[in-house]
Amino acid sequence: MTTLADVRAAAARIRDHVHRTPVLTSSTLDGELGAQVFAKCENLQKVGAFKARGACNAVFSLDDAMAARGVITHSSGNHAAALAYAARARGIACAVVMPETAPAVKVAAVRGYGAEIRFCKPAEREATCTAWQRERGARLVHPFEDSDVIAGQGTAALELLEQVPDLDLVVVPVGGGGLCAGTAVVVSSLRPQARVIAAEPLAVDDAARSLATGRRQPRVEGATTWADGLLTGLGEPNFRLLIDHGVRVVTVDEPAIVAAATFFLQRMKLVVEPSAATVLAALRGIAPELRGARIGIVLSGGNTDFGWLR
Amino acid sequence: MTTLADVRAAAARIRDHVHRTPVLTSSTLDGELGAQVFAKCENLQKVGAFKARGACNAVFSLDDAMAARGVITHSSGNHAAALAYAARARGIACAVVMPETAPAVKVAAVRGYGAEIRFCKPAEREATCTAWQRERGARLVHPFEDSDVIAGQGTAALELLEQVPDLDLVVVPVGGGGLCAGTAVVVSSLRPQARVIAAEPLAVDDAARSLATGRRQPRVEGATTWADGLLTGLGEPNFRLLIDHGVRVVTVDEPAIVAAATFFLQRMKLVVEPSAATVLAALRGIAPELRGARIGIVLSGGNTDFGWLR
Repeated sequence: MTTLADVRAAAARIRDHVHRTPVLTSSTLDGELGAQVFAKCENLQKVGAFKARGACNAVFSLDDAMAARGVITHSSGNHAAALAYAARARGIACAVVMPETAPAVKVAAVRGYGAEIRFCKPAEREATCTAWQRERGARLVHPFEDSDVIAGQGTAALELLEQVPDLDLVVVPVGGGGLCAGTAVVVSSLRPQARVIAAEPLAVDDAARSLATGRRQPRVEGATTWADGLLTGLGEPNFRLLIDHGVRVVTVDEPAIVAAATFFLQRMKLVVEPSAATVLAALRGIAPELRGARIGIVLSGGNTDFGWLR
Repeated sequence: MTTLADVRAAAARIRDHVHRTPVLTSSTLDGELGAQVFAKCENLQKVGAFKARGACNAVFSLDDAMAARGVITHSSGNHAAALAYAARARGIACAVVMPETAPAVKVAAVRGYGAEIRFCKPAEREATCTAWQRERGARLVHPFEDSDVIAGQGTAALELLEQVPDLDLVVVPVGGGGLCAGTAVVVSSLRPQARVIAAEPLAVDDAARSLATGRRQPRVEGATTWADGLLTGLGEPNFRLLIDHGVRVVTVDEPAIVAAATFFLQRMKLVVEPSAATVLAALRGIAPELRGARIGIVLSGGNTDFGWLR
């Protein structure tokens, strides 16, 4: 299981390859909630998302012999671009299996970082990836069910607690659970009196139901949400870490997600993708509990086509 | 004339009322230009623009007797909101003359900070303001022809040079010239080997023609530009300071302004209003001169309705 020591080691390992992102505040938001909110801007991170942290930690953890064989993953989202970025930073090969249906802009991002792409039917992603991985002997870097990735994602919370030590609450989005698990490890070790809340779209509420029932529930299939980065089901080690560290899930509906993303754009001048805006939607949903609290939120990414705007 | 000492005094005076805004970088942008660009994010400033700096310096420079009579200005833009914000921060009255044609969102912002508004026909702004000012005995805080305002705006460059000392070039937008004049004072004192470039929309190129001819040219009337914050003509003391400090103006056309604002939104995840995006348009226009340079740019504001987006 991932520990604080793993996260600290990850922070040292990735330091030269990721931004130390700023923490921003908004008196408008503080006034609305009657609390103090500190936004850790991972939307301003390399590749526009915290995923650069986990991917860099996985890539720079490889010994030279393993690194020489490169890395591989299957993803149509931010993780693919992040892994391609990390591989280029180390100067090794990266292979990405993408569904034929992946948006052109995401394909272009992965290709722009120099990764090799193989397309497949959406249902054949894992099989295609497994076959290609055997062929290349590359290290498979899973987007969230991977201890190096979880430790890397935890470095965002580590920095946040350095920047604002005395938080009462830390809120992150949850999809596969890499960011949430890494955050829970860090906060429970360094700031045990603070709670961790995971914001989850109501449309894909498997994490909420998993924690409520104590059994990991399957991902919701065929759901529609603006939070396209959170469609994934909660991973197994991630589920365990969330349980062990007492993470609470707050679900949010689509209008609340859009309103939150719009607030960041219009009032805080930040592009925050809907998956990341869930954290503000969650705060608004439990506002009466928050009076006087000092709250850290992780704005996990800023990659969006603005389809939700008006 | 405004000096470095004035700017330093302003920085101390306003410290508790404005953000120390972050400086962000983009490897994509650096790669495009073959240079290193450091973006001072005044779009993340209080009221969404550097104008909070000058307004706070003017308001907190007043002695108690003068402050008791409040402040007044005429403006339909960021300066009105900034003065209202500053007055509220000091707990004094603020009066703003606005044209009847001012956009509702800007009226709401000024009102939201508690200022009193008087509407008038656009051509009667100055007369209305003068009459109201006599009636109240309030201090008129001009948006840019004011030494306290110029000194306050200069604090952005002061911070930038603390954050990134070894710059070769600093680029700011120019409209009335408050930001540009304050920046020129700071850079020529603290980093004399660095040049200052002012970015100006081609559609309102009075600053370019003023510096080229050595005589201040009248503002361009009836022009259309996305850079609505730069429609103002260059002020008289501002013109003198730009001449004295050897500022160079680079003009930019509308497609270049829109492309630059879009780059900030899509790639840097920042809302940068078109007036502010002119700085990137200017860099792109003179890119061959910039190879290897370390360049500071001031992203002066983020208040926009996104009408330029696609």
